[in-house]
Amino acid sequence: MALIVQKYGGTSVADTKRIQNVAERVAKTYDAGNQVVVILSAMSGVTDKLIGMAGSLSDMPDKRELDVLLSTGEQTTAALLAIALKSMNYKAESMLGFQADIQTDCNFGDARIVDIGAHRIKSGLDRGEIIVAAGFQGCDAYGNITTLGRGGSDTSAVAIAAAIEADMCEIYTDVDGIYTADPNVCDKARKINTISCDEMLEMASLGAKVLHKRSVEFALKHKVLVYVRSSFNEEEGTMVVNGENDMERPVVSGITFSKNEARITLKRVPDRPGIAAAVFTPVADADINVDMIIQNTQAGGTTDMTFTVSKDDYKGTLSLEKEIARKIGAEAVLGDENIAKVSIIGVGMKSHSGVASMMFDALAKENINIIMISTSEIRISCVVAEDKAELAVRVLHTAFGLDKTE
Amino acid sequence: MALIVQKYGGTSVADTKRIQNVAERVAKTYDAGNQVVVILSAMSGVTDKLIGMAGSLSDMPDKRELDVLLSTGEQTTAALLAIALKSMNYKAESMLGFQADIQTDCNFGDARIVDIGAHRIKSGLDRGEIIVAAGFQGCDAYGNITTLGRGGSDTSAVAIAAAIEADMCEIYTDVDGIYTADPNVCDKARKINTISCDEMLEMASLGAKVLHKRSVEFALKHKVLVYVRSSFNEEEGTMVVNGENDMERPVVSGITFSKNEARITLKRVPDRPGIAAAVFTPVADADINVDMIIQNTQAGGTTDMTFTVSKDDYKGTLSLEKEIARKIGAEAVLGDENIAKVSIIGVGMKSHSGVASMMFDALAKENINIIMISTSEIRISCVVAEDKAELAVRVLHTAFGLDKTE
Repeated sequence: MALIVQKYGGTSVADTKRIQNVAERVAKTYDAGNQVVVILSAMSGVTDKLIGMAGSLSDMPDKRELDVLLSTGEQTTAALLAIALKSMNYKAESMLGFQADIQTDCNFGDARIVDIGAHRIKSGLDRGEIIVAAGFQGCDAYGNITTLGRGGSDTSAVAIAAAIEADMCEIYTDVDGIYTADPNVCDKARKINTISCDEMLEMASLGAKVLHKRSVEFALKHKVLVYVRSSFNEEEGTMVVNGENDMERPVVSGITFSKNEARITLKRVPDRPGIAAAVFTPVADADINVDMIIQNTQAGGTTDMTFTVSKDDYKGTLSLEKEIARKIGAEAVLGDENIAKVSIIGVGMKSHSGVASMMFDALAKENINIIMISTSEIRISCVVAEDKAELAVRVLHTAFGLDKTE
Repeated sequence: MALIVQKYGGTSVADTKRIQNVAERVAKTYDAGNQVVVILSAMSGVTDKLIGMAGSLSDMPDKRELDVLLSTGEQTTAALLAIALKSMNYKAESMLGFQADIQTDCNFGDARIVDIGAHRIKSGLDRGEIIVAAGFQGCDAYGNITTLGRGGSDTSAVAIAAAIEADMCEIYTDVDGIYTADPNVCDKARKINTISCDEMLEMASLGAKVLHKRSVEFALKHKVLVYVRSSFNEEEGTMVVNGENDMERPVVSGITFSKNEARITLKRVPDRPGIAAAVFTPVADADINVDMIIQNTQAGGTTDMTFTVSKDDYKGTLSLEKEIARKIGAEAVLGDENIAKVSIIGVGMKSHSGVASMMFDALAKENINIIMISTSEIRISCVVAEDKAELAVRVLHTAFGLDKTE
């Protein structure tokens, strides 16, 4: 007997027919002798519909109330799945955030889980119940409803799995697992059987949309075994494991790309101490996330500063920086929205040299110009022209030996 | 400055445009210097849609889970109204049943309010907030979500008004107030300016759908002043007052009718002690509500027993009674679904004799046959053929001097 957490995403519970399918899958796991906790997302499309309603009443809907509104989506699917399971004569109980004791901070719309009182879930399991918890939602210390941000149901699932010390957290989605690259872009992409949390974290940060980044952080921190698979078939999925893998590993595990990038350059900034703070503090104060930063000091006491932000923040950042440039005496502010970031990820990089030059070579051979570079221990990212992104993914996929062999 | 509770029904919050209208009405009341607590129903149609979804997963959806599901309707409107008010720069806060501390028993789907901890609502009001409470829902002692049954938002409003000792509970609906009869049936029906709780209770029990019966019981018990009016215009509505009215009152205040009636007769039941219990205990055990009962003892040691139930319960009761008749040796069981109940209501009856004979006379003059009669201190009800119901209402409306005079 194992204690298993199963999370089903929005497409898996998109209508009552699919909810019935989920009920049967859950029942099968329970019948096999396991204890089961199910975490659900809202039906796909519902959250956007609710946001639209709020938007018709306010340009900037109050965040506390928006959380009250959005949390109805997961409340609905949790109740419906519990109804389906009980109708099949299983003991089941739905739990909302406040009932499952998912304690968060007060940061409405993007709350962090502070603690989970596992007591109520555990006693339900002890009574032989299947627990159906609404994902995405929690409750702050004042009894207010909070939500965990987009994709937060993944985080709910991993956090609950950690709190109740589950043997496994299964993430059911509409794809078979994690791929070496987006199969829509690279038809030679292969499903990855096992990936490390570290790699998964980089992949999630860099545009692989299967798992919410924060859920992977949680899995890493609390050593939760995560298994990503499809709710629409019985295919094997991808196991996300903690620590390094014993198995023979390729140097590079996957290639990701993101087009949600924009670049801003301040030309000929006077090079004096404190200048970086002057450039970036106002951006941080406006809650804009800066990704890559390059500073290129010139002869003559000036420097060029280039950085990237998400496309959504591009216009706001540009007008902020124009004002800053005037104040600090920079020569000009240039911007470019037509860029993309292509990344290679793999724990194998740690022990292999020459990976970066191999990447640059592969891109150069296809005449793909590299605009910016950034690296971490297990990742190398290059900014390229937006219209070269897909080609770059395919080229790198082949270059690092990831292509599927029939 | 007054403390006012305003309840808006489903048609008043049917879409975001109407919610915006409600926000403006609430703001106007607040700007006039009042403290305001708003109770909302779900958007009209939403509750039925949710019930339909549950019905597609189960023939008998689990009641606890159905309450979790249905309570999302009022949660949605409460959040949206709070968003609208905050967008207009009013301080506002939505509260769900568990947050507003609406304590109920565990009778899912038809829970009774046990107590309301007024603390959280009151402290919000003290901070100058407009409180927007989700109607229809509460929370039992174990933290489960409960609902108060159809029309329960009226009860939420009156119960909250009682708990916080509000000066008035305004019920906003899609009609102007309480009428002497259904204006769709009787075009001479007049709006009633003031009605007593006792009369309102009889009217609500007997088919006048404007106010939920239990809310009137609550108003009567806790001496809450209720004012029924339209959310779509500025017309004066109907004041529901406690105790008897000082004003000159007509003998009859209103005429109601209900077609949701069916009649069952057991012919030639052996007349011995305990026979009524044998006939009605199985019906009560099946949670079927019996309304009128007539026993007509014949010569020869047998009796005919006739009673009415709602049309929904007709088939179930009929098959129950057929079995009972066989056991106790009754001759036959007859049924009739084509009946209606027409009632006259008025506190004035207490001090006027001859009201009943006046009613029978008026019906007789139009050749409307009376099938059954029942009375209370302030009400007389007659069962008539279903197709005579509307005519009976019009005849009685004229006979008791209620017709509107231009």
